[in-house]
Amino acid sequence: MAGNTFGKLFRITTYGESHGKAIGVILDGCPAGLDIAVDSIQKELDRRRPGQSRITTQRKESDTVQILSGIYEGKSTGTPISLLIPNEDQRSKDYDHIRAAYRPSHADFTYDSKYGIRDHRGGGRSSARETAARVAAGAIAKMLLETAGIRIQAYVSRVADIQVVKSHEQLDLSQTESNLVRCPDPETAQKMIELIDRVRKEGDTVGGVVTCVVEGCPAGLGEPVFDKLHADLAKAMLSINAAHGFEYGSGFDGTYMRGSEHNDLFENENGKIRTKTNRSGGIQGGISNGETIYFNVGFKPIATIMRPQASVDSEGQRAEVKGKGRHDPCVLPRAVPIVEAMAALVLADHWLQNRNARV
Amino acid sequence: MAGNTFGKLFRITTYGESHGKAIGVILDGCPAGLDIAVDSIQKELDRRRPGQSRITTQRKESDTVQILSGIYEGKSTGTPISLLIPNEDQRSKDYDHIRAAYRPSHADFTYDSKYGIRDHRGGGRSSARETAARVAAGAIAKMLLETAGIRIQAYVSRVADIQVVKSHEQLDLSQTESNLVRCPDPETAQKMIELIDRVRKEGDTVGGVVTCVVEGCPAGLGEPVFDKLHADLAKAMLSINAAHGFEYGSGFDGTYMRGSEHNDLFENENGKIRTKTNRSGGIQGGISNGETIYFNVGFKPIATIMRPQASVDSEGQRAEVKGKGRHDPCVLPRAVPIVEAMAALVLADHWLQNRNARV
Amino acid sequence: MAGNTFGKLFRITTYGESHGKAIGVILDGCPAGLDIAVDSIQKELDRRRPGQSRITTQRKESDTVQILSGIYEGKSTGTPISLLIPNEDQRSKDYDHIRAAYRPSHADFTYDSKYGIRDHRGGGRSSARETAARVAAGAIAKMLLETAGIRIQAYVSRVADIQVVKSHEQLDLSQTESNLVRCPDPETAQKMIELIDRVRKEGDTVGGVVTCVVEGCPAGLGEPVFDKLHADLAKAMLSINAAHGFEYGSGFDGTYMRGSEHNDLFENENGKIRTKTNRSGGIQGGISNGETIYFNVGFKPIATIMRPQASVDSEGQRAEVKGKGRHDPCVLPRAVPIVEAMAALVLADHWLQNRNARV
Amino acid sequence: MAGNTFGKLFRITTYGESHGKAIGVILDGCPAGLDIAVDSIQKELDRRRPGQSRITTQRKESDTVQILSGIYEGKSTGTPISLLIPNEDQRSKDYDHIRAAYRPSHADFTYDSKYGIRDHRGGGRSSARETAARVAAGAIAKMLLETAGIRIQAYVSRVADIQVVKSHEQLDLSQTESNLVRCPDPETAQKMIELIDRVRKEGDTVGGVVTCVVEGCPAGLGEPVFDKLHADLAKAMLSINAAHGFEYGSGFDGTYMRGSEHNDLFENENGKIRTKTNRSGGIQGGISNGETIYFNVGFKPIATIMRPQASVDSEGQRAEVKGKGRHDPCVLPRAVPIVEAMAALVLADHWLQNRNARV
Repeated sequence: MAGNTFGKLFRITTYGESHGKAIGVILDGCPAGLDIAVDSIQKELDRRRPGQSRITTQRKESDTVQILSGIYEGKSTGTPISLLIPNEDQRSKDYDHIRAAYRPSHADFTYDSKYGIRDHRGGGRSSARETAARVAAGAIAKMLLETAGIRIQAYVSRVADIQVVKSHEQLDLSQTESNLVRCPDPETAQKMIELIDRVRKEGDTVGGVVTCVVEGCPAGLGEPVFDKLHADLAKAMLSINAAHGFEYGSGFDGTYMRGSEHNDLFENENGKIRTKTNRSGGIQGGISNGETIYFNVGFKPIATIMRPQASVDSEGQRAEVKGKGRHDPCVLPRAVPIVEAMAALVLADHWLQNRNARV
Repeated sequence: MAGNTFGKLFRITTYGESHGKAIGVILDGCPAGLDIAVDSIQKELDRRRPGQSRITTQRKESDTVQILSGIYEGKSTGTPISLLIPNEDQRSKDYDHIRAAYRPSHADFTYDSKYGIRDHRGGGRSSARETAARVAAGAIAKMLLETAGIRIQAYVSRVADIQVVKSHEQLDLSQTESNLVRCPDPETAQKMIELIDRVRKEGDTVGGVVTCVVEGCPAGLGEPVFDKLHADLAKAMLSINAAHGFEYGSGFDGTYMRGSEHNDLFENENGKIRTKTNRSGGIQGGISNGETIYFNVGFKPIATIMRPQASVDSEGQRAEVKGKGRHDPCVLPRAVPIVEAMAALVLADHWLQNRNARV
Repeated sequence: MAGNTFGKLFRITTYGESHGKAIGVILDGCPAGLDIAVDSIQKELDRRRPGQSRITTQRKESDTVQILSGIYEGKSTGTPISLLIPNEDQRSKDYDHIRAAYRPSHADFTYDSKYGIRDHRGGGRSSARETAARVAAGAIAKMLLETAGIRIQAYVSRVADIQVVKSHEQLDLSQTESNLVRCPDPETAQKMIELIDRVRKEGDTVGGVVTCVVEGCPAGLGEPVFDKLHADLAKAMLSINAAHGFEYGSGFDGTYMRGSEHNDLFENENGKIRTKTNRSGGIQGGISNGETIYFNVGFKPIATIMRPQASVDSEGQRAEVKGKGRHDPCVLPRAVPIVEAMAALVLADHWLQNRNARV
Repeated sequence: MAGNTFGKLFRITTYGESHGKAIGVILDGCPAGLDIAVDSIQKELDRRRPGQSRITTQRKESDTVQILSGIYEGKSTGTPISLLIPNEDQRSKDYDHIRAAYRPSHADFTYDSKYGIRDHRGGGRSSARETAARVAAGAIAKMLLETAGIRIQAYVSRVADIQVVKSHEQLDLSQTESNLVRCPDPETAQKMIELIDRVRKEGDTVGGVVTCVVEGCPAGLGEPVFDKLHADLAKAMLSINAAHGFEYGSGFDGTYMRGSEHNDLFENENGKIRTKTNRSGGIQGGISNGETIYFNVGFKPIATIMRPQASVDSEGQRAEVKGKGRHDPCVLPRAVPIVEAMAALVLADHWLQNRNARV
């Protein structure tokens, strides 16, 4: 019960169904005195909104955010910040066919199993539309982190088997927004877009990986033994729709190595203790060490395809399901701002928590 | 702050340093009336304790559990259950050399950065010894889950590049405990043991993967949108020492597939709605669907190696560090009961939470 | 930080300032399948809204509730319920005079001290207007409790020194709503109204006591040792604006008695174990015992008076403050539905928690 | 479920039954670097322990605290502090007669109703012995508060109808520990002691009031709207065994006043904004204002009396109950350190929370 809140000190609670009146978020715990511009929030929402390019869903939602509370004369006041995004393009009829039928690999069956009732329109609460609320709150988290010099950048590093070969250090991450797929390597981006175009025409979908890089994070963030920084990042990332895997630092690749190869040796770099390599991904023992934090999030291909699939209805009777309406062939480009938002929420929370590490 | 508590309703708080007087755990929220046998708890601890075989650390700790509260005449009473494990084999001298020096890829530097003080002996709080407390509490979680017919079994599926080829459905998991490395495939187990022996002699360490399988879990567990069942499993697993990655169901492999290949079609199997395939890993939209839950946890090679490594001390001066004492060449065999314990804690918590899904 | 959430399983988060765009509440954790009628929520809000009678503030707010999420086809779906109440009658100019000056016994000074910034209009977040959000959520809590046969009724038992002499057992609580002051004893009610009228004309304010009675509560609610039922009720009541005291059962009067007088003896009443007297107020050891729960909440006189008062501004300069606009001479009549709402929220939460007391 | 944890950032979890092996507490969230002396903890426990004078229970428990973790070389390390107090004087036979019978106004019946099982010996978990764990943790909270200049002193202000007439400002609180009953007014103390002696001889018990005074608290502590400072104090106090009422500042007396009499006017005292009077009890809008915080806690007479009382057993059969063993005739003298401990825990938690009020 009550699983719609995330964070301990910098804490969000989201609400809203895909085809209800609105979705929204309450952010409680934002320190007072932070400059907050509504257009910075809107800018992040625009990166996530549907209809932004030909390789995303063509559904039209402006996703215009309204601030209902918590900000006065451009600054946070320390009281809860309420952000509301009205739902606009509600073609609920597109979903009449799944009122009873269970879409394969969707949450229709499990919501029914759990609650005995569900708002089937557009996936209801299980729709990825809910993540817009996270992005709005995450925009404020980013503003807080900026005051501490912490910068978060995510990008698409793989679509199916088309992969960026370069590591994040070798890439110019400022190029991420320069193409539709949000991959900072232009050539690879082009191939990814071509693949997504092809898959879309086939009525199919495709998965891949988003990589996230956090620079400027000071040492000390993370609360052992359970609220390790990477453990909270893992939960945050896996809570995003379609995410099936998380790895940080050397990740699964590192599990093939010997300790003598994997260890990051310390050195003194002009009076600052640093590591020569960074297979730890900027986190040791669950606490940031001042190096760059980086991690990967794997996304399965979206379940809604434009082809008929055999299924059953709530009575167990056979029912064919086929995607109607307007859907994404690939979740990855729009997942980039969501990954950043969730990372920002985790880091803002831990940044506040860490203020109390010492007397 | 206060990161030593895990779970919402079935909630544990652990304490203790590697070379302090004791480690322990308080379990709050265990329903009353559960039969609890101290030897069942001890049995799980024995699977985790050091010195159990030649491929684990030779440190000798009996890890004998004491029950201080919460159990009366063999049953839980609904009050907090306090379990204490005294520390016995405290060769603190083995750690004098790292009082100031920072061991590579350990938590020495980050604990110092965060807290400005640390109990350096044996890694203090950052030692994997803390996980014994989790295993003790997890044993009780397993007892609760058994009453609901839920069974958790983990095994070592890969050590470095030596991998079990068979899927979990093809294995006889009752064989897991029949060999030192806890791999249910006897031939692969033999190769893994040989590799670990070799690595140990080289003074090096090696990583790999633990796979965990949950059978008998009813549909309905998981609390969207943030406390999705797999999101909580991810956090639980990443909170274990040396864990660097988590994937469930089809995991990262599934990100290479098309939606039309990946989707799990529903069918009616003798009146029960089931999926033909199980790439979803028993969880859809963050809620269990009644199929088998399975996931992988990647562990990096342990940082403590028996070779000299260049490092620095807290003043930034050069210092050479070399593992002394008795350490594991491979974390995986002893990680198996820890993964099971953390999975049990997550599932017990969600099983209780799910009782309130409906009026 | 993050103090705007109340409850563990049946959990609300409120937001909104007195003169912002809206106030509202997210209710997370309401079990699915509960019948929820918007007009039942509105009815409770109407009991609290300003302008309802001549002895309350004449400010006009319709306090019309909108349901944004969580309810589908008249039933709760298990997802967060978002209720929004737009602010209408925002005469912000009435508050220009206190932009800098600190009103005596208000929260102006402390909000400034804590946050360094405040929305001064109408008291901002510290305004009692926030309690409308609690009443809206409390209405749903009442609906849940009704399914369990639990009934909550509060009334005004004292205004200044005009007191209802009868105990709650001797009163006909169905008379509470029959008069402006919400006192079920008609003669005393008349005297209370006369006093409030007189005080209002004097530009002054007056305090008193609300008594709350909970009938039909089964034995077992309450979670020792900290979340005792009466401890959570105490916190809930003291969180209401102007509340300065709480007592349950025999309360402060009981502290004058001997144990031999005070103890409630058990007896067998037709096969049911009951107490002959009820000085325990229906709660023993922090757990409900099946008898009627009752408690008192003391409210100080409202701080805003229509007379000039000496004060200082944020620079410490002398400033005279005098109430402008439209204010309540007595908080008590409108406090009755707020006390009921907070009691309902506590009981609904504990009712859910108690489902997990036993295996 | 899981009601044995108190606090958000400075957070304790207690465990243990009256006649089990031990009671104890885990304190998580104590900032690193705090000087902690075990004898300061012991000193507070000695103020609470049984057998300390002729007007308390003659049960002999040394209540010797052991530190198991979290403190290294005399300082907190930021990791959980585990404090254990072994149970010594366990005359469990004294309780055989209540294994089935329900003692009037005790928690025997409600624990059985809730959990279906209970450790009846000495009241089990419902015994006031549990508060020793709180006192131990509260001693550390006091140490943290001392670094901020916050001082907490409680005293017995009334036993039955024998009351200290002077206000807390008029008393010399350093006299509190100079007599058995912990009343700083020597003459009144003498009368209280005589009354308790008389009541003890009669085999009866008596209640009263503890007053608590907090000096040196800076403005800004308290987290509206639910976690108001006085709301959290109310919960903390009502969670103590036998507490039946709480009031702060002017309390219930203030509810008889007019607003014009009750308001605390601000003034500039040598550049500091202060209030001329302090009916607000140092808290306005739920946030401390820098003035002295004071509140009263009412305790009912202890339920265990040395006289036969009519009761029933778990089958509803008539059973006579009479106190055996050694019990307190008056809870108040030993409640003083408990009230202080709970106040310290609330203030330490809020002091940490308030660090994040501003960017």
